[in-house]
Amino acid sequence: MKPERSRTATNMKPEPSRTAKNMKKVTVSFQGEAGAFSQVAAQQLAGPDAVPVPLPTFQQVFESVASGKCHCAVIPIENTLHGSVHENYDHLLRFDLLIQGETFVRIVHNLIAPAGVRFADIRRVYSHPVALNQCRSFFEANPAIEQVPFYDTAGSVKMVTEEKRTDAGAIASATAAGIYGARILRKSIEDDRANFTRFFLLHKPALSKLATKPEPGAAGVKFKTSLVFTVRNVPGALFKCLSAFALRDLNMTKIESRPLRGKPWEYLFYLDFGGHVEEPAVKNALGHLTELADMLRVLGCYPAAR
Amino acid sequence: MKPERSRTATNMKPEPSRTAKNMKKVTVSFQGEAGAFSQVAAQQLAGPDAVPVPLPTFQQVFESVASGKCHCAVIPIENTLHGSVHENYDHLLRFDLLIQGETFVRIVHNLIAPAGVRFADIRRVYSHPVALNQCRSFFEANPAIEQVPFYDTAGSVKMVTEEKRTDAGAIASATAAGIYGARILRKSIEDDRANFTRFFLLHKPALSKLATKPEPGAAGVKFKTSLVFTVRNVPGALFKCLSAFALRDLNMTKIESRPLRGKPWEYLFYLDFGGHVEEPAVKNALGHLTELADMLRVLGCYPAAR
Repeated sequence: MKPERSRTATNMKPEPSRTAKNMKKVTVSFQGEAGAFSQVAAQQLAGPDAVPVPLPTFQQVFESVASGKCHCAVIPIENTLHGSVHENYDHLLRFDLLIQGETFVRIVHNLIAPAGVRFADIRRVYSHPVALNQCRSFFEANPAIEQVPFYDTAGSVKMVTEEKRTDAGAIASATAAGIYGARILRKSIEDDRANFTRFFLLHKPALSKLATKPEPGAAGVKFKTSLVFTVRNVPGALFKCLSAFALRDLNMTKIESRPLRGKPWEYLFYLDFGGHVEEPAVKNALGHLTELADMLRVLGCYPAAR
Repeated sequence: MKPERSRTATNMKPEPSRTAKNMKKVTVSFQGEAGAFSQVAAQQLAGPDAVPVPLPTFQQVFESVASGKCHCAVIPIENTLHGSVHENYDHLLRFDLLIQGETFVRIVHNLIAPAGVRFADIRRVYSHPVALNQCRSFFEANPAIEQVPFYDTAGSVKMVTEEKRTDAGAIASATAAGIYGARILRKSIEDDRANFTRFFLLHKPALSKLATKPEPGAAGVKFKTSLVFTVRNVPGALFKCLSAFALRDLNMTKIESRPLRGKPWEYLFYLDFGGHVEEPAVKNALGHLTELADMLRVLGCYPAAR
């Protein structure tokens, strides 16, 4: 999928004057319809000029970068209410891509309807079941409005707009309202405002060296490193592995375990910590971890978003 | 839901001669239709005479025990291919139930059809999408057979049997075939035989003390303890918490992290380790962990299934 083709495939209206420029533009794939929260993250991470390439599944998003069809991809990795996106942890192991950036997006759910539809007209609201479930107090306060599960948040805006529904709304991002020319009838109807999703920017390893700028130690920039490892199946094995970081005062920000295929009840551990792979303490920690772990792979080193 | 009512509600045919006895029998709830893999686990953990109570959701399963409607419940907690059942980790924290036992069930997928239907008659096969996805090589070898996603494995056997389908089969447990009077046409059609699910038996705390027999140290019986804790948001906090176990040679068998509601990017840690809460080393470890953790709750202590 070349940039200009993927642009057409996404159903986004190309701006003719920019078509020639798009040939050189960065393409960034994400899962979902145009206007998904992943697209908001994609424009934060790849820049506002990057051409968004919506794809139906996470696997296709990883494949689009591995095959060279897209320059980079943006994937959600964890949400403060739902936890980790475990499928994407598994893909990080399976595909040979590098994490080159992270960002956080506050998930703000808006009630969106086609232009001309008023709040009093709304009889049913479409959205992804997770989004509907995160707006329970809105539906309790408006019991006459029916909730209808749909495959995608932005996709529900696309549907009610394209079908010119006069009695239906959708719950999605403000970006989705803008893309489909719909109106926001109620802003921020989510129950819990501490609803954030963390996203990773992924590149092919060959392209990745450019992205580790700025240099470690540059003023004000902190780095994170992500890795995956397996431990020997002996008592205290994980504790010893974590000592490689704790003994060097490296701050672990996330640990996630996933089952190890073919070895029932053994696990892969995914770990994020503060530090750049070129820092002496991090080099030493990784050397120490190599002694202790059965398998170790660095998944990326990137500027910390917070 | 009283035992005899729940029995009726489940659509299982009661055996009239046993109805009186059922009044005294233990009821065990699980998620899914009769014949689900959770029912296989339920009969292993609560005994073959326990009355199975199928319920539609995990939340209803937890509620059935919390409210006293059922004596106990059996829930899946992790699978060797898919990983943890994160929703159930969240319910373990929300409901005040105790883990009283664990068991492991090998997930064997069988092609099942109504009596009289031959393999050559099968044009489509119904099952839960996860089960269909775990039998890819079967479908590759039989490309004429269409896969149809259904809400439940055992439920798909129930449907093809009740509707007397002459050209359809289902993928489910051998138990489901027995319950619905269907025939197994092909045994064990799953791609990966290292497919095991671990289940917990849950009781109300008041009922739980009976279940911690046999005594710790009784010949041949090993125990596991499960707990959940939060750490202070400082470098090395998790490492220090794990030291409470590692320094006492207590073997950690599982660690799972979940987001802490209301504190973005902080986590709950669920931990399983070998040992009984009455053993001195475990008592000391829990005392040590109390010093280090912000919150600590023991979720249960139970005979280890392996």
